[in-house]
Amino acid sequence: VSLVWLNGEVLDAAEARISVADRGLTLADGVFETIRCEGGAMLWLSAHLRRLAEAAALLRIPVPLSDSEVEAGLAALLVRSGLARAALRLTLTRGPAARGLWPPGEPIHPTLLATIAPLAERAPVRAVLAGSTRRNAHSPLSRLKSLAYGDAILARIEAESRGADEALLLNTAGRVACASIGNIFVCLDGAWITPPAEEGILPGLARARLIPLLGAKEQPLAVEALRRAERLFVSNSLSCTPARSIDGGDLPPQLPFDPAALYR
Amino acid sequence: VSLVWLNGEVLDAAEARISVADRGLTLADGVFETIRCEGGAMLWLSAHLRRLAEAAALLRIPVPLSDSEVEAGLAALLVRSGLARAALRLTLTRGPAARGLWPPGEPIHPTLLATIAPLAERAPVRAVLAGSTRRNAHSPLSRLKSLAYGDAILARIEAESRGADEALLLNTAGRVACASIGNIFVCLDGAWITPPAEEGILPGLARARLIPLLGAKEQPLAVEALRRAERLFVSNSLSCTPARSIDGGDLPPQLPFDPAALYR
Repeated sequence: VSLVWLNGEVLDAAEARISVADRGLTLADGVFETIRCEGGAMLWLSAHLRRLAEAAALLRIPVPLSDSEVEAGLAALLVRSGLARAALRLTLTRGPAARGLWPPGEPIHPTLLATIAPLAERAPVRAVLAGSTRRNAHSPLSRLKSLAYGDAILARIEAESRGADEALLLNTAGRVACASIGNIFVCLDGAWITPPAEEGILPGLARARLIPLLGAKEQPLAVEALRRAERLFVSNSLSCTPARSIDGGDLPPQLPFDPAALYR
Repeated sequence: VSLVWLNGEVLDAAEARISVADRGLTLADGVFETIRCEGGAMLWLSAHLRRLAEAAALLRIPVPLSDSEVEAGLAALLVRSGLARAALRLTLTRGPAARGLWPPGEPIHPTLLATIAPLAERAPVRAVLAGSTRRNAHSPLSRLKSLAYGDAILARIEAESRGADEALLLNTAGRVACASIGNIFVCLDGAWITPPAEEGILPGLARARLIPLLGAKEQPLAVEALRRAERLFVSNSLSCTPARSIDGGDLPPQLPFDPAALYR
């Protein structure tokens, strides 16, 4: 039986269902976090909850439970799932509401949902630089984990149609920003760089820990520089995945660090 | 009792619920249309269904029912709602799926949902030019009715905090693109203009009909030109709403046409 945690209760996923009027569904009016779980521990949990709270504050969505209530709920879900290594997803939406973009004076009953699945490591990916869409560096949403993953989905559709399995996205200024599901680190002339937050990226929790671990520099990444990349990997809170090629050009598919040194 | 039409059935809204794994909820992986209904008729229905099908094709979401099946379902919902004037919303998502942005080989069971509400006319609005975010003219999603309305929500939050009730959005090039919930028409030197599709706007069905009705020209709209606007109104498939001010500068709040000549 697959279990979820919805508005404070652990439920069978088949029973726990979302209102047709939930603004998470109708308008992508919400945010989420994905949390790596290993041996009963929820990695970087307080940082995840802080980031969720900051994103919710920007969107003026109240978080309906305290951090300790959320932690207890997630812990209960994790234990009852029986999974040793899991990906926990915590989603907050503005909840069900009357029709319209911003109905004035509408009471807010946010939806807080956690789902859980086995943690899957990805094999090294063939990446392409997507031409179908770009990250919006002008939108605050590009810097938080909004529900709106349509551009990433379009880029992934393009990657698949080009025989690849991951897409790198440009930002609106035409520089390389990130991958469809995480930040990127690129090795150039033997040194590691990653695009800065202002480039329209989500500043990931893994990224923040990798910068000191690798001595990486935050710097904008031109397409020409990407073409000279000696290595590239994608990071997020669940895992890091090396690219074995970019637009067909082979790269050594090794990570420059031991994941056990990062995810702890 | 509020009714909805979900995957081919008319249901009580309280019973018709969405899976916690629906990609419309988790990733904004879907599109929608809003349809004006009056006296039992669904206005511009075939154009709405064509636009939905085109957007779905771009996102590779199969439409699970034929146009005539959809029309019959929407008509049944409209009749059973008892509403003489209604806003029908038709939403298509990729449906429930396993975790992840693009799980390979995942079977697709799309969700097709219609909801209905009384059609509300909006009083003339106080508009502001939003500084908090911009439309992404580089993304194909800006030209279709994706579920991702976060930028519009941010802009509307800004409008409210500035004592207004509608927001005009710049595109990533810094030109005026549209309002939070529709296209804009601006009167400059006595002539009507509206930004072209390439400016990162959703090319609306009302807009397509208003261009010949007003003899409007499609042309990019600089902020300086907006400052000289003699009139402005917002159009969408449900209604047209004049602005009575832009950033506090008063405008005559009249539409330059009879809505009955448009919505028919």
